[in-house]
Amino acid sequence: MARQRLRVIPLGGIGEVGKNMMAIEFGNDMIMVDMGFAFPDETQPGIDYIIPDTTYIEKNMHKLRGIVVTHGHMDHIGASGYVLPKMHVPIYGTKLSLAMVEKQIEEFRLASAPDFRVLDPDKHERVQLGESFNVELVRVTHSIPDAAAAVIRTPIGTVIHTGDWRLDTDPIDGKFMDLARFEEIGNENVLLLMSDSTASERLGATPVEKQIEATFDDIMGRSGGRVIISTFSSSLTRVQLIINSSHKAGRKLAFIGRSMLANVELAVKLGYIKVPPGLITRVQDGTKGRDDQIVILCTGSQGEVNSALSRMSTGDHPHVKIKPGDAVVLSSNPIPGNEKAVVNSVDALLREGARVYQHSYRDLDGLGILHVSGHAPQDDLSQLISLVKPTYFMPVHGEFHMLVRHAELGVKSGVASANAYVMDNGDVLEITPTGAKKVERVPSGIVLIDGSGVGDVENLVLRDRLALGHDGMLVIIATVDKRSGRLMTSPDIISRGFVHMKESEELIGRVRQEVRKSFDRRDRSRPADWQRFKLQLRDDVADFLYSKTKRNPMVLPVVNEVDLKN
Amino acid sequence: MARQRLRVIPLGGIGEVGKNMMAIEFGNDMIMVDMGFAFPDETQPGIDYIIPDTTYIEKNMHKLRGIVVTHGHMDHIGASGYVLPKMHVPIYGTKLSLAMVEKQIEEFRLASAPDFRVLDPDKHERVQLGESFNVELVRVTHSIPDAAAAVIRTPIGTVIHTGDWRLDTDPIDGKFMDLARFEEIGNENVLLLMSDSTASERLGATPVEKQIEATFDDIMGRSGGRVIISTFSSSLTRVQLIINSSHKAGRKLAFIGRSMLANVELAVKLGYIKVPPGLITRVQDGTKGRDDQIVILCTGSQGEVNSALSRMSTGDHPHVKIKPGDAVVLSSNPIPGNEKAVVNSVDALLREGARVYQHSYRDLDGLGILHVSGHAPQDDLSQLISLVKPTYFMPVHGEFHMLVRHAELGVKSGVASANAYVMDNGDVLEITPTGAKKVERVPSGIVLIDGSGVGDVENLVLRDRLALGHDGMLVIIATVDKRSGRLMTSPDIISRGFVHMKESEELIGRVRQEVRKSFDRRDRSRPADWQRFKLQLRDDVADFLYSKTKRNPMVLPVVNEVDLKN
Repeated sequence: MARQRLRVIPLGGIGEVGKNMMAIEFGNDMIMVDMGFAFPDETQPGIDYIIPDTTYIEKNMHKLRGIVVTHGHMDHIGASGYVLPKMHVPIYGTKLSLAMVEKQIEEFRLASAPDFRVLDPDKHERVQLGESFNVELVRVTHSIPDAAAAVIRTPIGTVIHTGDWRLDTDPIDGKFMDLARFEEIGNENVLLLMSDSTASERLGATPVEKQIEATFDDIMGRSGGRVIISTFSSSLTRVQLIINSSHKAGRKLAFIGRSMLANVELAVKLGYIKVPPGLITRVQDGTKGRDDQIVILCTGSQGEVNSALSRMSTGDHPHVKIKPGDAVVLSSNPIPGNEKAVVNSVDALLREGARVYQHSYRDLDGLGILHVSGHAPQDDLSQLISLVKPTYFMPVHGEFHMLVRHAELGVKSGVASANAYVMDNGDVLEITPTGAKKVERVPSGIVLIDGSGVGDVENLVLRDRLALGHDGMLVIIATVDKRSGRLMTSPDIISRGFVHMKESEELIGRVRQEVRKSFDRRDRSRPADWQRFKLQLRDDVADFLYSKTKRNPMVLPVVNEVDLKN
Repeated sequence: MARQRLRVIPLGGIGEVGKNMMAIEFGNDMIMVDMGFAFPDETQPGIDYIIPDTTYIEKNMHKLRGIVVTHGHMDHIGASGYVLPKMHVPIYGTKLSLAMVEKQIEEFRLASAPDFRVLDPDKHERVQLGESFNVELVRVTHSIPDAAAAVIRTPIGTVIHTGDWRLDTDPIDGKFMDLARFEEIGNENVLLLMSDSTASERLGATPVEKQIEATFDDIMGRSGGRVIISTFSSSLTRVQLIINSSHKAGRKLAFIGRSMLANVELAVKLGYIKVPPGLITRVQDGTKGRDDQIVILCTGSQGEVNSALSRMSTGDHPHVKIKPGDAVVLSSNPIPGNEKAVVNSVDALLREGARVYQHSYRDLDGLGILHVSGHAPQDDLSQLISLVKPTYFMPVHGEFHMLVRHAELGVKSGVASANAYVMDNGDVLEITPTGAKKVERVPSGIVLIDGSGVGDVENLVLRDRLALGHDGMLVIIATVDKRSGRLMTSPDIISRGFVHMKESEELIGRVRQEVRKSFDRRDRSRPADWQRFKLQLRDDVADFLYSKTKRNPMVLPVVNEVDLKN
C-alpha cells in the first residue's frame, strides 16, 4: 500500500467568500468537494464570473473518483457548467442540491449528461469512492433546504467538510441539523474538521429563522398597501416564510424575477416548498386587485442593477411602479461591497414614496428580525468543534480575517494550537498518522469568464480595461510614404473617454503638431524602424498630454505605410 | 422694502454625504455656507473630486455678501480652491477652520489672497452681512476642534445651520458645545433649523470620545511590539488622544503620511494640539529603537490604495515593514463603499503577521471603543431640536434615507409635520412670515475634477470610459484609394482590453475578412459617403464580435483616404 498520506488542497473559497472548491487526495484516489463561482470585483471590469483554476485536478484526472456537492448555492455549484465537461465522474449530493446543479448546467448543453447520485443523509447512506474514501452526507441547517456536510472516511481517519451551515434549532421544514450524528462521528477518530468561517467574527448563536415570519406578519398588518419583499432567490427557506405570512394575511403572492421563479418552481416541484392553493397570482393580475391584498416577492435585495427591485425603484419595471403606500422589505443584509448599491436602491424607492424596511434599521421601526445569516456565529462554531473533537482544524469559506478568527476559536475549543491551519488557495496540507504540514503549492489561480470566452481574459487585458476606464485613450494614425518615410497627410487623431473632443479642438491640434515634431526629429539617415519610432511617439505624446491635462490616456500610435508606386 | 422672502437653496450635501454647500437669500443679499467636495463613485472613473455646480451663485454674485465655513473638514471646505477665485467676498469662520481653508488653497495660487475674518464663538461675535443677515457662530463639538454652527438672523427670524456636529459631553479640549447659547437662541423666533443627518439612523447618544484613550492605553499595554494606529488625518481630536496615550506608555510617536503631517503641524502651531516635549520621533529613527517603545500614527484607515497603511500592508512602504508582533489599530469605521478596500488592507496586514484591532470587532478582542462618529445620533438630534424649537426644519448633510429619518425625528421632537422639508440639491425653499414652500429648482449639478481640467469631463466622456473599461475597444484602420474607394492594404486592427491579441489571431483575421466584406457590399455607383459607411462598418464588426465572444467592445473605424496621384 502507498504511503499513508492524506493531501487536502483548497482550490477556492480560502481567503475569499465564494468559488468554493476543495480537492482531497489519498494514495491513488482523489475527490472534489463543491465547484462554486464568485463575482468579480472592481479590479475585474467586464468579467461575468470567476471560477477556480482546476489545472491540478485535470492533471490528476485519472485519480478523480467523484464530486461531492454540499448544497445548491452558486458559490458551491456555480462553476458546474464550466468544469463538469472536463470531469466524467459521478456527482454526489442530496436530492435538492443535485437538482440545483442540473438546473444550473441546463444552458451549457453538455455532450453527456452528468451521472448524478443522490445520497440520503437521513438514512446515513454511504458510498465508497476508490480504495481510500467512504463518503456520507450529514444534514446541516442553512438558508437553503437539504444542505449537508461531507463526512469522508479515509484510511487514517475521518475528514469532515461542513459546507455552509448555521445551527437553526427550530427549522421551518422540520429537518434538524443532525447533531447526534456529528456526536457519533466525533467518537470516531476525526482527523480533520473543515468548517464554514463566514460568520466567525459574530458573537452568539444563530437566531431561529422562523422568527422572521412574525416580522413579516407585523409589516403586512401595518401596511395598507402592497408589500414588496426582496430576498436572495436562493434563500428558499425565507421564501417559505413569506408564503406562510402572505397566506395568513389573506394576501395574494406574486413572484418576480427570472431566478426567483426558476428556483421556487423547482423547490415546489420537489416538495421543498409548500404553497397553499390559490395563493399565487401573476403580477399583471395582482395590479388589478386591492393593494392591501398583494405581496410581491422579488430579487434585488443587493441593489443589483438589473434586478426586479432596482428596476421598480427607477420606474423601469414593466409591471410594477412604486407608489406611496407601498411597503418595501429588504429581507437580507448587504454583502460586503454592495452597501453603496443597496443605499442607492433604497433612496430611489424612498423618493417614489415607498416605506422601506431593512434588517439593520429594525429597531428604528420597532420591528423584529428581518434576516438571519446562513452562517454559524461563534457559539455554534465552538459547539461543533467540541462535538467532533478534530485533531486538525482548517477554517474554510471566508476572507483571511475570518479564517484567522475561526482558527483562534478552534484553539479555544480544544484544537492544539499547532494543529489549526490557516491556508491559502493552492496550499497543500499533508496529513500522515504522525503529523501534518503544508508541503507545497499547486496551481490555484482564477479563471475569468467573460461572455462566451472562458479563461481568455488575462491580466494584460484587465490592466488595459482599467487604464482605458480611468483616463480613456487616444489613437494617432500617421500615414507615411513608404519610400521617403514622410508624413503624407495631417495625422488622424481619435480619442474616447479622455476629453470632450469637440471642446478640445485646440488640444487635439497641438497633439498633431507634437506628432509632426516627433517625425521631424526622426533620424532619416537610416531605414525607418517604425516599431521603435512608435514607442518614442507614444512617449512624446503621452508626456505632452500629461503636462497639459494631468491625465494619462492610453496613447496608441499607428504608422500606416503607403507605397505611392503601388 | 422688498417682499419678506427668505430663500434657502442647498447646492450640495443633500441626498449624499459630501460636497456640502448652501445658499441663503433674502431681498438683495445672499450668503453661502460651506464649500465642500466629494469623492467619485464607481460610475465616475478617473475623476479626482466632485464639487457643486455654483452657477446659481455666480449668476447672483452681485448679491453675495460673504461665505461662512462651519469647520475645517474637506466635505465642507474642499472646493475652496475651485470656487474662491470666482467669489471675492469675505470668508467667516473660527480660527482653525479658516486656517484649514488657507492651507487647502495654498497649491491653487489664487490671484488675490482671500479676505479671511475670524468670528470667535466664545465671545458671541457677530457680523452684519448686507442689510438682511447678521451671522454668529455657536460652538459645537465634532471630530475636529473649533467646529461651529452658523446662526443667521434675518428680518423674519433666525436660521440655524449646524454644520457637522455631535454632542461630546466631556470634550478633550475642554471646549463644550454651547448648549446654553442654543437655548437662548431657541427663545428667539427660530424660523428654520438645518441639522446634520449623517447619523440620524443611529439610536442613543454620542459616547464620550475621551474613552477611546483608555482603549489605546490597553492596546499599548498588551502589545510587546510596535503599535501602528491609523485614523483620518482630519480627526484632530483623535490625534490628541493618541499623543496622550503614547506619552503615558513611554513610547515615542512618529507621524506618517503627508496629510497627517500637514494637519498635525498646523494644529500644533495654532495650539489646538498639545505635544509633550521629546515625544515625537521620525519613523526612520524609530525603527532603530525598541519596538515596544514606538507608536506610528498614519493614514489609510479606509484602505485607500496609496495611503501609508496600505503601502505598509503590501510591503511597499520605504520605512515601515509589517512584522509579527506589530499591533495595527484602525481607529475608524469604513465609510460606505470602502468596506471591501478596508478588508483587503486588513487581510494583507494579517498575512504579514500583524495583530489587527478594529472598532467593529472590539468585543471579540475584549476592548473598549476605538472610534466615535463625528455625527450626532437620534438622542442628540432630538435634544437640539427641542432646545431651539424651530418652526421649519430641514435635515441636511446626508443620503436621502438619512434625511427621511431625520425629518421623522424632527416631527417626533415637536416640528409640525407639514414644516419638515426633505429637499434635493437645487430645490428652493421659500419662507415668508406666513408660510413656506418649495417654489422652484435652480442649477445644482456636479462639476467633475480630473487632473488639471475642471468641469470638462462630461457625461459623454464618462460613458466612454465605462464602456472602454468594460469590454475594451477595437480600432479598424482601412486605407483606401481616394479615386477608386478600394482598400489599398489589409485593414489594420488595434485592440486593447477586449481579447488577448496574440491568442486571438484567428478572431482578428476573421475581423479583417468582415471589414473586406463590408467594403465589397458598399454601393460603388455613387461617390463614397465615408461617414455613413463607417457607421455601417462599425455595426457589422460589432455584431460579428458579439456573436463570437458575447462581448461588446467599442468599435472605432477609421477610413484613411490616400490620393495615389499625390
